[in-house]
Amino acid sequence: MNSSKYVYQFKEGSASMKELLGGKGANLAEMTRIGLPVPPGFTITTEGCNYYFDRGRKLSEELKAEIFKNLKQLEGITGKKFGDKENPLLVSVRSGAVISMPGMMDTILNLGLNDTTLHGIVKGTGNARFSWDCYRRFIQMFGNIVMKIDHYKFENIIEGIKEKRGVKYDIELTTEDLKEIVELYKGLFKQETKQEFPHDPREQLLMAIKAVFDSWNNQRARVYRKLQNIPDDLGTAVNVQAMVFGNMGDDSGTGVGFTRNPSTGEKEVYGEFLINAQGEDVVAGIRTPLPIKELENKMPEIYKQFVEVCSLLESHYKDMQDIEFTIEKGKLYLLQTRTGKRTAAAAVKIAVDMVEEGLINKEEAVLRVEPKQVEQLLHRQIDPDTRFDVLTKGLPASPGAASGMVIFDADEAEKLGEEGQKVILVRPETTPDDIHGIIPAQGILTSRGGMTSHAAVVARGMGKPCVCGCEEIKINLEADKFIVGDTVVNKGDIITIDGATGNVILGEVEMIDPVLSGEFQQLLEWADEIRQLGVRANADTPEDAVKARDFGAEGIGLCRTEHMFMSQERLPIVQEMILAETKEEREKALKKLLPLQQGDFEGILKAMEGYPVTIRLLDPPLHEFLPNIEELLVEITKLKITGENKEELKNKQRLYKKVKNLAEFNPMLGHRGCRLGIVYPEIYVMQARAIFQATANLVKQGVDVKPEIMIPLVGHKKELEILRELVVETAEAIMADTQTRFDFKVGTMIEIPRACVTADEIAEAADFFSFGTNDLTQTTFGFSRDDAEGKFLHHYISKKILSENPFAVLDTKGVGSLIDTAVKLARAIKGYLKIGICGEHGGDPTSIEFCHNIGLDYVSCSPYRVPIARLAAAHSAIKSKNKK
Amino acid sequence: MNSSKYVYQFKEGSASMKELLGGKGANLAEMTRIGLPVPPGFTITTEGCNYYFDRGRKLSEELKAEIFKNLKQLEGITGKKFGDKENPLLVSVRSGAVISMPGMMDTILNLGLNDTTLHGIVKGTGNARFSWDCYRRFIQMFGNIVMKIDHYKFENIIEGIKEKRGVKYDIELTTEDLKEIVELYKGLFKQETKQEFPHDPREQLLMAIKAVFDSWNNQRARVYRKLQNIPDDLGTAVNVQAMVFGNMGDDSGTGVGFTRNPSTGEKEVYGEFLINAQGEDVVAGIRTPLPIKELENKMPEIYKQFVEVCSLLESHYKDMQDIEFTIEKGKLYLLQTRTGKRTAAAAVKIAVDMVEEGLINKEEAVLRVEPKQVEQLLHRQIDPDTRFDVLTKGLPASPGAASGMVIFDADEAEKLGEEGQKVILVRPETTPDDIHGIIPAQGILTSRGGMTSHAAVVARGMGKPCVCGCEEIKINLEADKFIVGDTVVNKGDIITIDGATGNVILGEVEMIDPVLSGEFQQLLEWADEIRQLGVRANADTPEDAVKARDFGAEGIGLCRTEHMFMSQERLPIVQEMILAETKEEREKALKKLLPLQQGDFEGILKAMEGYPVTIRLLDPPLHEFLPNIEELLVEITKLKITGENKEELKNKQRLYKKVKNLAEFNPMLGHRGCRLGIVYPEIYVMQARAIFQATANLVKQGVDVKPEIMIPLVGHKKELEILRELVVETAEAIMADTQTRFDFKVGTMIEIPRACVTADEIAEAADFFSFGTNDLTQTTFGFSRDDAEGKFLHHYISKKILSENPFAVLDTKGVGSLIDTAVKLARAIKGYLKIGICGEHGGDPTSIEFCHNIGLDYVSCSPYRVPIARLAAAHSAIKSKNKK
Repeated sequence: MNSSKYVYQFKEGSASMKELLGGKGANLAEMTRIGLPVPPGFTITTEGCNYYFDRGRKLSEELKAEIFKNLKQLEGITGKKFGDKENPLLVSVRSGAVISMPGMMDTILNLGLNDTTLHGIVKGTGNARFSWDCYRRFIQMFGNIVMKIDHYKFENIIEGIKEKRGVKYDIELTTEDLKEIVELYKGLFKQETKQEFPHDPREQLLMAIKAVFDSWNNQRARVYRKLQNIPDDLGTAVNVQAMVFGNMGDDSGTGVGFTRNPSTGEKEVYGEFLINAQGEDVVAGIRTPLPIKELENKMPEIYKQFVEVCSLLESHYKDMQDIEFTIEKGKLYLLQTRTGKRTAAAAVKIAVDMVEEGLINKEEAVLRVEPKQVEQLLHRQIDPDTRFDVLTKGLPASPGAASGMVIFDADEAEKLGEEGQKVILVRPETTPDDIHGIIPAQGILTSRGGMTSHAAVVARGMGKPCVCGCEEIKINLEADKFIVGDTVVNKGDIITIDGATGNVILGEVEMIDPVLSGEFQQLLEWADEIRQLGVRANADTPEDAVKARDFGAEGIGLCRTEHMFMSQERLPIVQEMILAETKEEREKALKKLLPLQQGDFEGILKAMEGYPVTIRLLDPPLHEFLPNIEELLVEITKLKITGENKEELKNKQRLYKKVKNLAEFNPMLGHRGCRLGIVYPEIYVMQARAIFQATANLVKQGVDVKPEIMIPLVGHKKELEILRELVVETAEAIMADTQTRFDFKVGTMIEIPRACVTADEIAEAADFFSFGTNDLTQTTFGFSRDDAEGKFLHHYISKKILSENPFAVLDTKGVGSLIDTAVKLARAIKGYLKIGICGEHGGDPTSIEFCHNIGLDYVSCSPYRVPIARLAAAHSAIKSKNKK
Repeated sequence: MNSSKYVYQFKEGSASMKELLGGKGANLAEMTRIGLPVPPGFTITTEGCNYYFDRGRKLSEELKAEIFKNLKQLEGITGKKFGDKENPLLVSVRSGAVISMPGMMDTILNLGLNDTTLHGIVKGTGNARFSWDCYRRFIQMFGNIVMKIDHYKFENIIEGIKEKRGVKYDIELTTEDLKEIVELYKGLFKQETKQEFPHDPREQLLMAIKAVFDSWNNQRARVYRKLQNIPDDLGTAVNVQAMVFGNMGDDSGTGVGFTRNPSTGEKEVYGEFLINAQGEDVVAGIRTPLPIKELENKMPEIYKQFVEVCSLLESHYKDMQDIEFTIEKGKLYLLQTRTGKRTAAAAVKIAVDMVEEGLINKEEAVLRVEPKQVEQLLHRQIDPDTRFDVLTKGLPASPGAASGMVIFDADEAEKLGEEGQKVILVRPETTPDDIHGIIPAQGILTSRGGMTSHAAVVARGMGKPCVCGCEEIKINLEADKFIVGDTVVNKGDIITIDGATGNVILGEVEMIDPVLSGEFQQLLEWADEIRQLGVRANADTPEDAVKARDFGAEGIGLCRTEHMFMSQERLPIVQEMILAETKEEREKALKKLLPLQQGDFEGILKAMEGYPVTIRLLDPPLHEFLPNIEELLVEITKLKITGENKEELKNKQRLYKKVKNLAEFNPMLGHRGCRLGIVYPEIYVMQARAIFQATANLVKQGVDVKPEIMIPLVGHKKELEILRELVVETAEAIMADTQTRFDFKVGTMIEIPRACVTADEIAEAADFFSFGTNDLTQTTFGFSRDDAEGKFLHHYISKKILSENPFAVLDTKGVGSLIDTAVKLARAIKGYLKIGICGEHGGDPTSIEFCHNIGLDYVSCSPYRVPIARLAAAHSAIKSKNKK
């Protein structure tokens, strides 16, 4: 490339020259190249920008000459002349960096206007008011953008004139008013800049170009580049384009259009237009635009041409386009085309249709749909066309929306739920004691607790909407009401919660149901063909397992046995087990739990026939199953003072002592996970027995089951060795008892930094690894999620210390480095070790890409996120293939 | 080496042949070699042992022939004959592995005795009773050890005879009784083994040798080898040695001796002996042995010879020896020499004296004293000669012993302390509210909390004895007493606690004071010359700083500013700061704290003139400074029920709400460390200002100060960047204000796994790193120390999942791997980065060795452990030099 060429006519460029011409310039060139009617213009390149800075922010004489040479060409093409009083050429000047960036200079329209050329425009448009308004706007834009005169100073002048005239809207100003404003603007310009407003259009142009270049190095752009790691020497291009006007009479107009319906994806031109108008008029909302189809009646030729353009653009760009156009005196001009934004449903339909039309292949179709976007297709949601007022906002703990009457008590929620009423359970926080109230509720709202609080975890597991940690809500349980600011919400009032946004809304809001369209199913099948990562689901019940299978899960990656402990009829037995003074007492309670657990496992294993089911043995600290210690203390204090019911007092005191004894300073780092199995092997033995008895029963029925027993929170190989032996012995005993043979695996969750750095040792005792990235993120950062999300994480994100919540998007630099170390260490010992991830990150597209790149075998996520994970896994596979 | 030679006479071997002859055999050979009077004998080698196993546990004919050839030689040397009825040769048979090992076979004495040779012994000793007793013992040892006949079956026979005779002690049995026992033993032997007791001495010998070999592969030895990673093919040697008898009349005797005083280290022969006796008689305690010096009167020639032997052994082994000897008919025999055990004080004196005597060099002297051992020299301790009964045991939280009256209330402890009374503060657990009671107390005893509980940390910081987590103690605060089992201890009763062992003792116990002898000082100076690691101390007050300097600290590695917040007069201001609703209120409280903190820093910086002082900014969660939430709740409940004092109720409720709001689920992973500085920068600014104003004041006085500001709990480089800027700005402002210039450093604690794996990024913003291994161990293991030590860690250690408490001895495999990663990443970016460690591990010798090996610059530990660290650092340097 000739390094001394800094200016290109649109017709000289193409889409492939994006680095030189910037995004906008390359796009305008491309449309010109393929023969679309684009108002002519030229681009000053990004190299020109660097040249400008290299010369100390000066436009060299050579560069100026090149610009004017191209301006001359533009005059030739348009038949108009810059600065001419009869038929003046007006241009727009726009910045156009390679990567679009906040802080860069805005558009300047109508450049070339002055007291002389104005008259040419008045003549050409036949509209003096419009022409003067153009002039006013140009001075304002130029003064503000190029000369940095504060915007409000221009607005003050307009406001002054409106006041004088006694009018309210700009549109009510007359031509004379506008003339007066132009004069006042010129005065302001001189006062602020100590120079006259430049009447020479060439001077205007050079000043505007310099301003674009300078905006590349303003504070905001520099900070943005630093944050985004964009090199400072990319530079920005400048686009200079002939103006066209859609308001030159009834044979003119302006509009926007989509090549397909961006809402549904239907293959039809879509959009709206206005006759004799400019783009601003559409925005101002004074005239109502017409649907694009009516153009067929008003200007049949133009409509035909427009449809052809749409078709051409689609076949050229191979994607749905969002087009801006202007009709000037019966001639169609395209001002912009870009890939059109669309709803998730439209994205899916368009992608699948385009494959069928032969425009794109399956991989391209899969890449066209963002995994994050399809989440909206998977939950009941608030109708996007509905308007509502948000009462307050909490943490978006479990997606989906729900309406129902506010109920503060789990027993009452259960009762009403059984009666078929829709209720939203509202609690300061929930505990296992509330589970019977959560099951029948439409959704959960809590004022305390983070994204892993009991309410959040249980709700996500059930696919039930939940907003938690909504601290603005002051709950008064005694008065059966909550207050937000001045608003009082009483028991029985209807509210709506949106677990995807955290919104809490008064009253009922229109909802729409999730639809897994045929196209979506098709797209996911293609994704399945492409992806290398397996996709499993986290599910704790047979119902969830069925749901997961329906959504395409190829197994259960995490079945949390503790959730089976939390149902109302089981909790007393669990508490009996925990409070047992002796091993014998404990075993007695465990014996009662055994058949219940066995039933759970039979259901899940059967539902997932043919697929592996990873069952995690008991993980949480035992005191999570016990009554709240503060409530106990209050009861004891009351009983002491009243002196009534000495027996009750003694019982409560005994219970308090035990609960206190089991309480921990940092339960997250306390006596939980495999540490329970080490100290109370009888608990793990009971669970293993329940799993294997279920397995044996199913094997006898001819069901193909693949149980995988997962030991949680292992940090040392000996923990796994000891517990593995326990599990294997139990399995062998049951095979002998039941005269059956079955396969099973024993593996571990990797969720402790020590497990990562000693993964080579641990791998020796494991058939599989599953990264528990929730806990691994907590321990690697030293963040307690429940505390961090309530207390300081928002500071960290708002101060940009962290760019994302590491509990939602995997921290690849820190946590990821430990995961990578673990995979490498383990695979060096056992190349065939199956490795997956079952933390919440398993359903997050960015994190899934990381999992793909480091060679994991599968991801596991909540059933509702399985389609997202399938799609994201396919994206990752395509991206890494394309990189090679 | 001739591989077919399996037997060596003692005179053929040497100390260097330990692998072949085993430890005992090589040692006996060495003594023989240097001309000491050792009863002659021979060793069957470890290769012989492997040969035996290779042949399927069979002694080959060749091996047997070689054994008997050597036996023949032994007969020649001793002039006695195996199996002879006149002058029979008796031998002992002992195992002798390379590494001594539990489970290996015991000694068999008097082998060669039978009905015939017995009479030769009777004749030779002139003592029929002794001879028959030897015979009885031989049959019993042989039956038990070689033939595995249960010990109690022999004892039953003796008991039966004693009952029949109506006597109580073995010594009262007559020769006739012993003859009867021998007959009964023979019967038992036949009954149990279905064979006659072997009368052929050669058969006895071969059976005994086989038994020694077999014991190499018994269950206990195999398990031990597996645990200790000792290869199974090392094998054991067998030593066959001629018996000598010290009970052949008044020209015979037996004794043990040390070449120096093992208690004080004085250079003098030390030990005791008995005339006409065997070793067993000394153990039986029936006759009182005489001090070795009296041997000079009784047998001057033997004494002279003994002193010469001592001198020879010392100059040969270059260490103090522990010797067993027997005098048979006026002739001195040495049965064993080994390095003598000694007290810490003796170890130090002997090492230093031996350098002065030219026996060893300084490095050898330093290596002679185990760092762990000298801990007993650094604290007041229970007199080791005192006998006492232990009431119960808790965690050994802070070493040293103390006696005092039991006091349950901090106010009362303070009052009595001021009156000069000695008190032990006994609490369920302590909080900052108790600090005024801890300061005057002799020691602290708590029933809850682990090694990092408030009591433990504060006590260690003060060098005050503390036993914590003593769960057997049931404290009844209302009744001013505590109960252990049946024992009631009331307020005012005297108890003694030993913080090095965790012992709690009723009453007062004799104590001894620590003495840092001249020799110890000398040894530490030599250590300083050798070591490469710097040694600093963790100190929070000027008094501690002075103490640390006296003990040889070269700076403060950790000064915890929060401890300055905990004194009684400051706590209300701190609480005011924490409970502030606005930034302004908080800054008002901080302003009050500023001069107090500044005073603290001036004192410490001045005390450490010329040395660096690393000051950590506020680290613990703020609610640690607030009242106990359960107590508040009880008070509120009471006030509610009684209905009195509505105002008080409101205040308490307001306070409860705030405390509850600040409470965290997992405070260890919560809003603490630099997260406080990020959310409340004004707190860190106040602290930085206090440090730099103190610095400026001292600089003006000409004091050489080196403040190093340490940001705690950094996990992301941006945290450090932001807070570093804050500190640097504050310093610059104060330099400008005070017209001074001073140097300072800003660094960070590395105590979060994420900090380790992103240490390259963090290093860019740091002048130094200091590993906070307490928290790093917690996060790497996912262990909350307070919970782990109370709930499951003892299971982990007793089940050998962990060989040591990782909070006492650094887990080099897991935590160490992260530290190593961090050092490598950081040094790759900044080769000169100063890196130290300031966790408790900084005072643990094994952990110090690790720090040396990975190239840290310094360790920092409590002042009382500084001498240990100096010594351990020198050990590490020598060991790594010797490895090269």
